[in-house]
Amino acid sequence: MSNLIKGNAVIGQSGGPTAVINQSLVGVIETLKGCRSIPKILGANHGVRGIVENKFFDLKDISKTDLECIANTPAAALGSSRDKPDEAYCEEIFKIFQKNDVRYFFYIGGNDSADAARIINEMAEAEDYELRTFHVPKTIDNDLRVTDHTPGYGSAARFVASAFAGEDRDNASLAGIKISIVMGRDAGWLTASSVLGKIDDDCGPHLVYVPEVTFSIDKFCDDVKAAYDKHGRCLIAASEGIKDSTGTPVVVGLAERLGHTVERDSHGNPQLSGSGALGDFLSEIVKQRVGGKKALRVRSDTYGYLQRSFAGYASPVDQAEARECGRKAAQLAMDGSQDGTVVMKRATGDKYKISYHRAELKDVARHTRDLPAKFINKAGNGIMAGYVKYATPLVGDLPKLGRIF
Amino acid sequence: MSNLIKGNAVIGQSGGPTAVINQSLVGVIETLKGCRSIPKILGANHGVRGIVENKFFDLKDISKTDLECIANTPAAALGSSRDKPDEAYCEEIFKIFQKNDVRYFFYIGGNDSADAARIINEMAEAEDYELRTFHVPKTIDNDLRVTDHTPGYGSAARFVASAFAGEDRDNASLAGIKISIVMGRDAGWLTASSVLGKIDDDCGPHLVYVPEVTFSIDKFCDDVKAAYDKHGRCLIAASEGIKDSTGTPVVVGLAERLGHTVERDSHGNPQLSGSGALGDFLSEIVKQRVGGKKALRVRSDTYGYLQRSFAGYASPVDQAEARECGRKAAQLAMDGSQDGTVVMKRATGDKYKISYHRAELKDVARHTRDLPAKFINKAGNGIMAGYVKYATPLVGDLPKLGRIF
Repeated sequence: MSNLIKGNAVIGQSGGPTAVINQSLVGVIETLKGCRSIPKILGANHGVRGIVENKFFDLKDISKTDLECIANTPAAALGSSRDKPDEAYCEEIFKIFQKNDVRYFFYIGGNDSADAARIINEMAEAEDYELRTFHVPKTIDNDLRVTDHTPGYGSAARFVASAFAGEDRDNASLAGIKISIVMGRDAGWLTASSVLGKIDDDCGPHLVYVPEVTFSIDKFCDDVKAAYDKHGRCLIAASEGIKDSTGTPVVVGLAERLGHTVERDSHGNPQLSGSGALGDFLSEIVKQRVGGKKALRVRSDTYGYLQRSFAGYASPVDQAEARECGRKAAQLAMDGSQDGTVVMKRATGDKYKISYHRAELKDVARHTRDLPAKFINKAGNGIMAGYVKYATPLVGDLPKLGRIF
Repeated sequence: MSNLIKGNAVIGQSGGPTAVINQSLVGVIETLKGCRSIPKILGANHGVRGIVENKFFDLKDISKTDLECIANTPAAALGSSRDKPDEAYCEEIFKIFQKNDVRYFFYIGGNDSADAARIINEMAEAEDYELRTFHVPKTIDNDLRVTDHTPGYGSAARFVASAFAGEDRDNASLAGIKISIVMGRDAGWLTASSVLGKIDDDCGPHLVYVPEVTFSIDKFCDDVKAAYDKHGRCLIAASEGIKDSTGTPVVVGLAERLGHTVERDSHGNPQLSGSGALGDFLSEIVKQRVGGKKALRVRSDTYGYLQRSFAGYASPVDQAEARECGRKAAQLAMDGSQDGTVVMKRATGDKYKISYHRAELKDVARHTRDLPAKFINKAGNGIMAGYVKYATPLVGDLPKLGRIF
């Protein structure tokens, strides 16, 4: 126990929640819980915002049964935050840490959270204040570097895979063109998972569009027509963040073309999630350009927040891994590591096996990782078998489905 | 075996599919399968349309393993149809039946399908052609009469309940106003199920709007403001079919008000499903009227086809009951009943128990059943405990969730 320092721990959650971010939270709590050198385990309400406002929950006395229920619950049990703290903000955090004798800080989030942790950590070092700072990765986007994949991705991918597996059968029942929009502003990882539940090659999604590939309306309409002619129906998966050749999100371009407006946030970014606009615009274009005078059955759905928040359908693999990432971060801190993030490495060979390691905060902070070109087909409208091999172990067993036609 | 007549069987599926309509299909097939008096079991491709086009699948030789996969698959494995056959259409069906020596007809569908079965049955009687005609109920809308509930409802309600349970936690993580649109053109049964997964009374949905209650934009905005002030967030469930005081769907009125257009089908009915329009319009109104100058976080999602087609999350209770309804229809026909539909009766007392009975086609055909007033609160924006008691056994065990705040 010589590597322990005496002091309190703070845990926070940040960014868009996932179905398993609370598994990581509980992983940290249960690992720290028995430790006498850590009198208080404090949960920051709404991430860094809760820290600067000194709003904490006492997490040490939550029963094992309650912890399991919390672990099983989607979204951030402590509350999340979109604040991206700059140096001044981090200084406020650091003051609260000093005031509360906080010596352990765990921040569960994406690359921005890793960056926040990095800045706070540097500040502590500069002031010679002993603080052990760990980032625990989470994001449904799977866009963090260094790690094989991110906790949260497997569950969101499981939802998307099962959604498309059912959608294809629904769209075969009453044949038509169906466009379904998947989360993903810049990375197509989640949209790629739409192919994981296919019964066979005739099943949809027949077309997959990701933000990594420039989207062309003309090519899209040609693709849809060809797929509809071939299969007698067409199911399309598209990322909410698909962009045109100027880098403009397609939803913005289509809105202008169709005479609608798109909401923008205070930074001028168009709102992509929490709106059905992109799907509805693509529907209109398909009706006009592919349907022509024929009355085609064209529908769109936007999977929206369900992809990250649906209760009861998380990937068991993802749940266990997210828990282990939380445990590993706590263990590293207790074992004397000063800072870092947890990354997952996949064993080589056919059997899926993950090991957990410490990595430097700076290697994960800020950067993102796109869906690699090798996972996208040459036509830019489909996903390669290599991706299926990579992603299948992450989503857990999918339902066994069958078809008559 | 004296009650059997020798001849072939036709099975069809109709209307909007459900997650368990194939359970009923397999229930019929497995019951008829061993019967020597029924040489062929034919599946009509796309319901009545497949019959008149003489497009059938041979269902007798599908293996038990494959049948289980099909039973487990959402949507209509035979293909569905929106055709509402009139007398002339039914005459065509009847000719094909005579040509193929069909003596058993099973039609799995909603009230329109029961009506089609009724007309075909009367035609057979008039021509003294022995035909045993059975309707097997299905609909996510739960709006059939006589039966305690409909196969298909429990699974859709399970999806909606789990979706809202997670959405509430997501909306607590990053607090704001969230509007989620649930299927239901005329009946609020499915939207009511949004309350089944609540952890406690502070959890959302905080407001529930069903088509049975006249929707007022003014009252809606007041409700949202009050709920937001009380809970610091607000989660809203609204049926796609909510109507204003003139009986016009709200989506149409809002479209006009906001300068948009709404797609209509060939009968002039506005398209409700397969579009995010209603949610997006309500979002805009809330931003304008409740947010005012404050930048409120307002989001909307439309659950769309996932409610009926999501693979892997059906209610086990619903699956078993849908299967049993199919078996019962086949058994009734083999036992010598001429026609009818299958209804479920719930045993009185605290223990949930269902028995299966024959009812007259005419009692189910055409009519629908609304969500009763006793299940809706006085303010017209919430669901009563009586509904929760009624619906809880139908959805199966929901995930055990927990919260810190």
